[in-house]
Amino acid sequence: MMTEKNFRSNIQITVEKVRAENPMAPSITNTVTQDFVANAQLAVGGSAAMIYLPDEGETMAKVARAVYINLGTLMPFYAETIPRTLRALEKNQKPFVVDPVAIGIGNLRTEILMQMKNFKPTIIRGNASEIISLAKLWNLHEEDGGSVRGVDSTETVEKAAHSAVELAKFTKGTVAVSGEKDLITDGNVVIYSLGGSPLLSKVTGGGCALGGVMAIYLTVASPIIAAFTATAMFNCAGTRAAEKAKAPASFKMHFLDELYSINAADVAASEFAVFNAE
Amino acid sequence: MMTEKNFRSNIQITVEKVRAENPMAPSITNTVTQDFVANAQLAVGGSAAMIYLPDEGETMAKVARAVYINLGTLMPFYAETIPRTLRALEKNQKPFVVDPVAIGIGNLRTEILMQMKNFKPTIIRGNASEIISLAKLWNLHEEDGGSVRGVDSTETVEKAAHSAVELAKFTKGTVAVSGEKDLITDGNVVIYSLGGSPLLSKVTGGGCALGGVMAIYLTVASPIIAAFTATAMFNCAGTRAAEKAKAPASFKMHFLDELYSINAADVAASEFAVFNAE
Amino acid sequence: MMTEKNFRSNIQITVEKVRAENPMAPSITNTVTQDFVANAQLAVGGSAAMIYLPDEGETMAKVARAVYINLGTLMPFYAETIPRTLRALEKNQKPFVVDPVAIGIGNLRTEILMQMKNFKPTIIRGNASEIISLAKLWNLHEEDGGSVRGVDSTETVEKAAHSAVELAKFTKGTVAVSGEKDLITDGNVVIYSLGGSPLLSKVTGGGCALGGVMAIYLTVASPIIAAFTATAMFNCAGTRAAEKAKAPASFKMHFLDELYSINAADVAASEFAVFNAE
Repeated sequence: MMTEKNFRSNIQITVEKVRAENPMAPSITNTVTQDFVANAQLAVGGSAAMIYLPDEGETMAKVARAVYINLGTLMPFYAETIPRTLRALEKNQKPFVVDPVAIGIGNLRTEILMQMKNFKPTIIRGNASEIISLAKLWNLHEEDGGSVRGVDSTETVEKAAHSAVELAKFTKGTVAVSGEKDLITDGNVVIYSLGGSPLLSKVTGGGCALGGVMAIYLTVASPIIAAFTATAMFNCAGTRAAEKAKAPASFKMHFLDELYSINAADVAASEFAVFNAE
Repeated sequence: MMTEKNFRSNIQITVEKVRAENPMAPSITNTVTQDFVANAQLAVGGSAAMIYLPDEGETMAKVARAVYINLGTLMPFYAETIPRTLRALEKNQKPFVVDPVAIGIGNLRTEILMQMKNFKPTIIRGNASEIISLAKLWNLHEEDGGSVRGVDSTETVEKAAHSAVELAKFTKGTVAVSGEKDLITDGNVVIYSLGGSPLLSKVTGGGCALGGVMAIYLTVASPIIAAFTATAMFNCAGTRAAEKAKAPASFKMHFLDELYSINAADVAASEFAVFNAE
Repeated sequence: MMTEKNFRSNIQITVEKVRAENPMAPSITNTVTQDFVANAQLAVGGSAAMIYLPDEGETMAKVARAVYINLGTLMPFYAETIPRTLRALEKNQKPFVVDPVAIGIGNLRTEILMQMKNFKPTIIRGNASEIISLAKLWNLHEEDGGSVRGVDSTETVEKAAHSAVELAKFTKGTVAVSGEKDLITDGNVVIYSLGGSPLLSKVTGGGCALGGVMAIYLTVASPIIAAFTATAMFNCAGTRAAEKAKAPASFKMHFLDELYSINAADVAASEFAVFNAE
């Protein structure tokens, strides 16, 4: 792995490059948190667009530099939109972030997630329960755990570490697990990002917004740098917003403001810990 | 009816229990205000999830303790999702809240509302025009009134009192009418909750958020306690938010913050008036 | 053209009339920014409702005084909803605003926009790239430019002036181009509205909200007055919000608050410049 100095330097460059280049990362994402996803993408300096129809997905896979796919609210026609977008992403060799929200609920979601195994997402982002469930769905291990309650995790990040590493080894990409601590792994190293605020979990869509921002950073950086930069950015912004607000709605406002205002150097200086993957 | 002291004690317990247990109440709800519904549910201590597809509705009717159904923006496939969810709710004997937004507009909405009559919603929540229109659609009386203008009421809450009582007698559940004063009835008593702010009507989705929060409280309380607690919570939070903000967007932020911060005892101490139903 | 004094007087009357009459302008609009559109419509004193299904569009075209159609996120059934709504608008001689968001992406959007040519929208609102692309799609001229990148403009407002004038001459309606300066033309005169803040472009849906507010003003004013009043209102509110906030989320809150609070006379006094169309 790169040195800590190089790693921090890459984070700073990633934050600054996005602010300078205003890259677009279109999304297939749930209707509940589209506003938060788009506003977070804009706040960090990127640009947002939403995909619904199959040929829109194919066009976007050609013109965009990275795509975000979140399975939160599937509609019937997504049975065509998502597979066609995945094939176009593969054909055009474009990176993409997958968020397996609500894994285990409904047949269409399971079918799409099974297909997704063949396309090996560049970044997989989820909470602990989702990551454990996905590793199980893809038969990567046989461990217990991973019960999903709607969109919430019932497991700790540490418990998902093994599943995350297995998934990353399988995809040869990056896996990010969000929780009190946040874990990012490429299958070789496991990085924990510290900071943030529990208030973010009292606002709907914090995880979705994080996935959307990972896709923005993925337009200019490697998967592990993109996933870590987004996570560190969210943790720094969360820590600062929690100093200004004590309740969820004012917290969300300050949080988005911080995504826009925070120094790239401060994000690069954020606390983390690195371990070798088992 | 229970004594005032018992009633107030039940409200306080309901607020506290939700904050302690973090119960989920999934929704089939309109796309316009999903963010507000979910954030209000999270702010009071609950958890949110959105249902789109038929088998998702069936699963959620099994695993959740209460469901919220709002007819604001129907999509074609809801013709299957809503009836299948209603049947699953009945089979699993789960309580649910119905919000007949935009009643009278479009055939699908009318068909679904006609079917709903057979399932007798645990709580019906609407503005005055919607409640009068629903009582008419279900042939519960033949009075005048109840014209609906899009999503707004053109009638006062008092004018809807008779319709609300008739609906509650028919469903053997609770009916809540939102307006300047808010009315809650179980067919035997009519309770008016006071307080709140007209600014909430200058923000889209106040009624939807209220319905969503009623579903959260319904996971731990009886229909009338759930409906009243949500209403009193909204009125307390609205009164306080209006002391801090004089315009809709800052009002909404303070309102959500108050849902999260307000003392359960203060909600239980909120002003109300009880009458016997005619 | 009317005198400057008359023009300013009309703006003030339009702002005040909407606040007094609370007119509804329903929308077929994208799911990403529905909340912002509705909250902006409510903040200026209007009322919002969303259309999804074909017969809802037909009903709304009858009962509403103006409709807003935004093509941001098309769903398959919009292939029926939008044409049927357009025919009902024509039959009932109701004015409507069209926002050709994401023009060029996907076949359904192109088909709908080709059909729209026959219905001659009362107001067309877009960014520079969208307006240039629409004039090209409708074969109104053969100039270069107009590349669209998702939902963002890659062109300046000045570059779109010719296309805007051609579109307005063709529709005999009004065309509004949003950007650093904002252009409004009826094909005879070109008016530039000044003010506003670049922070509005760091929030998703500023353009959509503007289109929605134009539809509100169109319920009580002529197309050119409606388009200009909405634009001037947004520029005044943007300028003031930017004095109170330095980052996007707090800016958005103050912006919506200003839409609600600002004096009609201040909007009427806003800076503009008038030129004859080429």
